[in-house]
Amino acid sequence: MQRQIDLELAQLKNALLRMGSLAEQAIGLAVKALVSRDAGMAGQVVGSDEAINRLEVEIDELCLRTMARYQPEARDLRFLAMALKINNDLERMGDQAVNIAERTSDLLKEPLLKPLINIPRMADIVQRMVHDSLDAFVRRDVELARQVCRQDDEVDRYDDQLFRELLTYMMEDPKAITRAVNLILISRHLERIADHATNIAEDVVYLVQGKTIKHHLAGE
Amino acid sequence: MQRQIDLELAQLKNALLRMGSLAEQAIGLAVKALVSRDAGMAGQVVGSDEAINRLEVEIDELCLRTMARYQPEARDLRFLAMALKINNDLERMGDQAVNIAERTSDLLKEPLLKPLINIPRMADIVQRMVHDSLDAFVRRDVELARQVCRQDDEVDRYDDQLFRELLTYMMEDPKAITRAVNLILISRHLERIADHATNIAEDVVYLVQGKTIKHHLAGE
Repeated sequence: MQRQIDLELAQLKNALLRMGSLAEQAIGLAVKALVSRDAGMAGQVVGSDEAINRLEVEIDELCLRTMARYQPEARDLRFLAMALKINNDLERMGDQAVNIAERTSDLLKEPLLKPLINIPRMADIVQRMVHDSLDAFVRRDVELARQVCRQDDEVDRYDDQLFRELLTYMMEDPKAITRAVNLILISRHLERIADHATNIAEDVVYLVQGKTIKHHLAGE
Repeated sequence: MQRQIDLELAQLKNALLRMGSLAEQAIGLAVKALVSRDAGMAGQVVGSDEAINRLEVEIDELCLRTMARYQPEARDLRFLAMALKINNDLERMGDQAVNIAERTSDLLKEPLLKPLINIPRMADIVQRMVHDSLDAFVRRDVELARQVCRQDDEVDRYDDQLFRELLTYMMEDPKAITRAVNLILISRHLERIADHATNIAEDVVYLVQGKTIKHHLAGE
């Protein structure tokens, strides 16, 4: 039997996926602006944040309205609570994409410091994590969610490596400082996006299995 | 008449305040470790994160259990949903305190770059914002919450100013680079804590007035 609340939950799921694809687009565009040195594209990312922010507020309200109207049972409540959290993580990914675009605009004021190799690689992993975390959410796929969590360590290693490399660059050539600092910050922003994807993946595991793997308290 | 759910809500409020004071302590200790160049204190901050992480999971579960057990009405649901969000912001403040402590440990390997002036000032404002956002939550004080939101701009200005100053330092003296980058990152972590306090303050306004001031969509 189709319950009335199922319609609302399906609508909510669609809204979250729309939010997810906006965040994915913003991240993709920010990375592309960086790699192709395209100032117009960086500006587009900054402009797209408004839509993400509006959708976040709409989704929050939809969650709360559904909670209040249907007094849902435990399983649906868990879904609604996780939707609030996932929504928040997606909005913050959008913010991080804006940060990357702003650092990119700054970088474009000077010639290329060095061919970008590790940042695009790291960005590839991060974008896949974002995509997979949403996919795991849609398909309630715990295995895929756990895979996302494992990739987070790889991203952290890239971030550490970039940090050390870029420090060396700066020490060898003070004219490289502003650019190197901007690249360090971009690497940090990518690392934060990976953290948000990991949060989403952890929420998916909780949603499906009803137990938390957050902070590895429950072990794996 | 005392309702059963009121007991649970009171318990939840207390748990959030305990979480808030753990986060406040961690931030205070991280800043103190930085200013007094105390490696032991920095290590303490890193060690304290475990307790914050455990409490976050407990609070999440308490929220969900209360939602499922009592099928609360709209006003209580709104409180429970905001509790989930505030809990998340507090946990992330704890993470940022750990980041500050880690950068501090790194800084302590070299002599002081320059007397710290702006970072402690910025840290004072940030710590007050954290404290006031929790106070606003407890007292349902919309005016105080709005004040927290306004202070966020001041923190952003400090962060920008520090960024420019520290870039200049690095350019003048390449030996200062590692230390200056660590200070830039600490300033960013403080700025992120202020963002989380602002999120809490926005949630308080929503909780009390039932309308969002997020992203300034609703105007002020």
